[in-house]
Amino acid sequence: MKPKGVILETIDSPADLKHLPLSDLPELVIELREYIIDTLATHPGHLASSLGTVELCVALHYVFNTPDDKIVWDVGHQAYAHKILTGRRELFPTIRTMGGISGFPKMEESPYDSFGTGHSSTSISAALGMATASKLQGCTHRQHIAVIGDGAMTGGEAFEALNNAGVSKANILVILNDNGISIDKAVGGLSHYLVKITASPKYNQIKETLWQRTGGDKGGSKSQNFFSRTLHTLKSSLLEGSNFFESLGFRYFGPVDGHDVGGLVEVLSQLQHIKGPKLLHIVTKKGKGMKRAEKNPVTYHAPGKYNADTGVQISTSQRLSPLKYQDVFGHTIIELAERNDKIVGITPAMPTGCSLNLMMERMPQRTFDVGIAEQHAVTFAAGLAAQGMVPFCNIYSSFMQRAFDQVVHDVALQRLHVVMCLDRAGLVGDDGPTHHGAFDLAYFRPIPNLTICAPMDEHELRHMMYTAQLPGQGPVVIRYPRGSSVHPDWHNAMQPLAIGRGRCLRVGETVALLTIGHVGNHAAEAAARLADEGIAVGHYDMRFVKPLDVELLDEVARQYSHVVTVEDGCLQGGFGSAVLEYYSDRQENNPTAPLPQVHRLGIPDHFVQHGPVPALKHECGIDSDGIYNLIKRILR
Amino acid sequence: MKPKGVILETIDSPADLKHLPLSDLPELVIELREYIIDTLATHPGHLASSLGTVELCVALHYVFNTPDDKIVWDVGHQAYAHKILTGRRELFPTIRTMGGISGFPKMEESPYDSFGTGHSSTSISAALGMATASKLQGCTHRQHIAVIGDGAMTGGEAFEALNNAGVSKANILVILNDNGISIDKAVGGLSHYLVKITASPKYNQIKETLWQRTGGDKGGSKSQNFFSRTLHTLKSSLLEGSNFFESLGFRYFGPVDGHDVGGLVEVLSQLQHIKGPKLLHIVTKKGKGMKRAEKNPVTYHAPGKYNADTGVQISTSQRLSPLKYQDVFGHTIIELAERNDKIVGITPAMPTGCSLNLMMERMPQRTFDVGIAEQHAVTFAAGLAAQGMVPFCNIYSSFMQRAFDQVVHDVALQRLHVVMCLDRAGLVGDDGPTHHGAFDLAYFRPIPNLTICAPMDEHELRHMMYTAQLPGQGPVVIRYPRGSSVHPDWHNAMQPLAIGRGRCLRVGETVALLTIGHVGNHAAEAAARLADEGIAVGHYDMRFVKPLDVELLDEVARQYSHVVTVEDGCLQGGFGSAVLEYYSDRQENNPTAPLPQVHRLGIPDHFVQHGPVPALKHECGIDSDGIYNLIKRILR
Repeated sequence: MKPKGVILETIDSPADLKHLPLSDLPELVIELREYIIDTLATHPGHLASSLGTVELCVALHYVFNTPDDKIVWDVGHQAYAHKILTGRRELFPTIRTMGGISGFPKMEESPYDSFGTGHSSTSISAALGMATASKLQGCTHRQHIAVIGDGAMTGGEAFEALNNAGVSKANILVILNDNGISIDKAVGGLSHYLVKITASPKYNQIKETLWQRTGGDKGGSKSQNFFSRTLHTLKSSLLEGSNFFESLGFRYFGPVDGHDVGGLVEVLSQLQHIKGPKLLHIVTKKGKGMKRAEKNPVTYHAPGKYNADTGVQISTSQRLSPLKYQDVFGHTIIELAERNDKIVGITPAMPTGCSLNLMMERMPQRTFDVGIAEQHAVTFAAGLAAQGMVPFCNIYSSFMQRAFDQVVHDVALQRLHVVMCLDRAGLVGDDGPTHHGAFDLAYFRPIPNLTICAPMDEHELRHMMYTAQLPGQGPVVIRYPRGSSVHPDWHNAMQPLAIGRGRCLRVGETVALLTIGHVGNHAAEAAARLADEGIAVGHYDMRFVKPLDVELLDEVARQYSHVVTVEDGCLQGGFGSAVLEYYSDRQENNPTAPLPQVHRLGIPDHFVQHGPVPALKHECGIDSDGIYNLIKRILR
Repeated sequence: MKPKGVILETIDSPADLKHLPLSDLPELVIELREYIIDTLATHPGHLASSLGTVELCVALHYVFNTPDDKIVWDVGHQAYAHKILTGRRELFPTIRTMGGISGFPKMEESPYDSFGTGHSSTSISAALGMATASKLQGCTHRQHIAVIGDGAMTGGEAFEALNNAGVSKANILVILNDNGISIDKAVGGLSHYLVKITASPKYNQIKETLWQRTGGDKGGSKSQNFFSRTLHTLKSSLLEGSNFFESLGFRYFGPVDGHDVGGLVEVLSQLQHIKGPKLLHIVTKKGKGMKRAEKNPVTYHAPGKYNADTGVQISTSQRLSPLKYQDVFGHTIIELAERNDKIVGITPAMPTGCSLNLMMERMPQRTFDVGIAEQHAVTFAAGLAAQGMVPFCNIYSSFMQRAFDQVVHDVALQRLHVVMCLDRAGLVGDDGPTHHGAFDLAYFRPIPNLTICAPMDEHELRHMMYTAQLPGQGPVVIRYPRGSSVHPDWHNAMQPLAIGRGRCLRVGETVALLTIGHVGNHAAEAAARLADEGIAVGHYDMRFVKPLDVELLDEVARQYSHVVTVEDGCLQGGFGSAVLEYYSDRQENNPTAPLPQVHRLGIPDHFVQHGPVPALKHECGIDSDGIYNLIKRILR
């Protein structure tokens, strides 16, 4: 047996890869998997997806002339082998660490990352754009490849792109990476359909014949014709003539084994010479090459640290730490749903991520995973609410950006009683700029009829969830961060909150801290530190961004000359701006009323990179140090 | 020949309709068409779509037990006959007038409008939500029907919903109203596919046999079985076994003639008894019953006033009025594209609405109608830009809400040179709250890397378009309103503008008007009126909302004690808030700097209803009267 990584060590770029004989590729695949498993054991990342696409990454860079040929990795967390093969082997252990390489493809990181991703279902659109550019620029040889999972294929944008590409005659190859899993198990009609294709009893038999007949050929036009014809036969017989993708104008090839690197090289080499929009359906196993990950791909999607040999996860927190906000949500919705039979739970493909899986197990009839489909999730919720149900629709803050119009048009305009829970609001850490929930307060605040609130801790989250489901409410947004909540015991008695009323946590003088959500804890720390120094600042947890507690703001204006607003959202148009707007309007109506000077803390006007949340908060000045320092500056 | 409308006059609700013998329905259909044509001749509305669905509206209300059974009309401008049949016959001439009935279904208007629409592709999601609610509520008899055009079916959300519904076992009927037209001609793979189905030579023959065999039957279970079997045969043979919708788990029925009201009643009666998700494909003619509209469905989508007998449009403006902003865009992009071969034009299904049809005719290779697919449109543009092209992506402001995430994630984060032109920004008038472009400044302003500007007139629009395509730009947003521009001659010489610099239009004292976009003209009027009274106010056209011209704001702060911001966008987080934020930050850094009092004019925090734009602006206080009155109040 060879020592680890001897081939991999020689690969500094795809050019090196192309020098390898085809027969070395299976060994390289093994080495790549070992390297990924070994590295991620101590440098956590997206393990299972990347293990599933190692052969594909190798085959693509072996066959295609990257970076001139363009590969767009949908979502992108399956592209680790791609990163390793394209000059980032040595940097790979820095993945998702501050200053290190990103967990997603990123244009500024490498010319081989032809398009940045992070959110799903964009790759076909982007590749079609590139293919169209090449055509207009008179470049006929360039290949444009979108690699997209079966989960991401359920996102509406992917369909919009297929529909457009199918008639475009553009030179685009969509590789459907079908593993039956997105992050959680893939759902929906398309998923059933793909299972039907791949489970066909004729599949292995015809595939075997096909590979035998084409295996020896080196790609002459005769064999290509044969190949094309046989694939056509394969496809027609397998699908009993019914093919979703061909309906849309794509030539469909597959399904083929995505873990046969030689086979992939062969089929990709052939497809290179077929013009127009085509789709290659490959079947892979998420977590391939690591038993535990293969068996539990959901757990091993991003498993944290683990033992590289056994795969056993290493628990990072033995201490009795506070529950994650998402778990408090997960337990609380069950508690509420047991009392209120109108409540249903909805998630677009993130039941584990938002802990709605708890409800799904307990109340499968009342919990809906609608697939990667944020737009649909929100309108579906609106439809339920129109018939008297009370849907809790849980969507990560940055993914809710996908459903902005549906919130305006289907929920808010019709004042429907939909509760939108935004998990991962604020800075999320290692996933970086595509996943920070920086904009939600700013993009939701302009929408009429919305109630928008953010809990300072998990007890407040429970009060807000309780309040949101009470009869007579309209649309309610509750946003809370990724990670741990605050208290050792999360299970408080839930109480109704007065809509649009904040609370005073600490009375002081000169400076009042006005906070929204979890960052209130950092403000409380800063205030306590200042109190230790004999400086008494006020602290008000506003609870609601909309409607604002204007009585409390009036009171604050009477008692303090300075107001510091703190939020873990963008400064443009966010909570701080809401406070500014109110004080400005108040001055207009009552020019003699006292007007405090407002200082706003929040996420500045640039995309914050990836890194640990505390470090990023520090950078933005919204941790307790930042708040403390600002107050010292004000009082200087 | 009967006199006009004798049957229709007796129909005050679907209950009245159900009392009619089946044999009266063809006559009712004729009367409904006459009534629609006669009414819209003088009360303009969406003509062609509504003419295409008269038989469907009649058949649906004849067969189903509305409003207990739920019908969701996708987009909704095809639902005029539905409105007339459901108690709004006499109100129909008030359609789209201020205080009158809406041009779209609206929950608060009628219990028969089970879900409000306006934007496309939401109906299946909403109907699925309702069906799911019924199931949870133990109601098994209720029917849930989504009526969706083939154009709207290309929107990603429709696909997300089909994918989810296909495995849901929910009792949902999707009626695909296939007329080959959305507002412009439908495009994309799905559209080709539908043509293939309906153009099949076997179609008429099998259909004929089918109707003959089932025609005499009254719906006993035997005939239903036969019907179902025959439809299955029809479908399999027609589609050569390939069916897009069946792939997703729907039972597919059709295509059937959507203008045979008896046939529709028959097929809907049968489908009523088939459980689970099903899709009925009907073929209709947009504009049916009015020759000119049938021939020119794009022109007659919303033709304005016309002669009811001849269909000839009545030109409302003989005078040489200023060109519409959209036409200035349409001509200017050609002018720019002729000089800069990197420029391409993109529209999601609105080439006529945004006048990109001009470029499409002149430069078909460089102009892309991507279908009703805003998300894809933006990422497609990003893909083009990633390869060095300069795409102008034109999307109505309210529809851009659909692509918010793509602007953040695919364009802004990667600083790609995409020019996003937002037509119909601000209040749009008769189409009402679903179509007002009220939020764009507020939802785009938080996004880093964007340049956001709005022209005060068409000359400025041309300068901005010219500037936006210059090398080295990142993403640029240009937003402009519906309707006429300002000058008799639009064709000025284009010049580059300094990014983030405004201009002084009038120097004054005490009060400075800061305006963005076309409302600057109203401010100029107000300032002129005040000048006539001897009151000199300043007027600054800021041109850019992002980056703000902070030097100009500093200058204004030195010279004036009051600042009035004017925008035709929402007050929360918009342009006025940007000015507040700047002055607040400035005070923080330089507490002794002069601080003017800011007064903000804009769209208040509620959904503005439909009505003429001048009336709506008056209501919001952003016309010249509103501006004039505020300044008088300030100076009192």
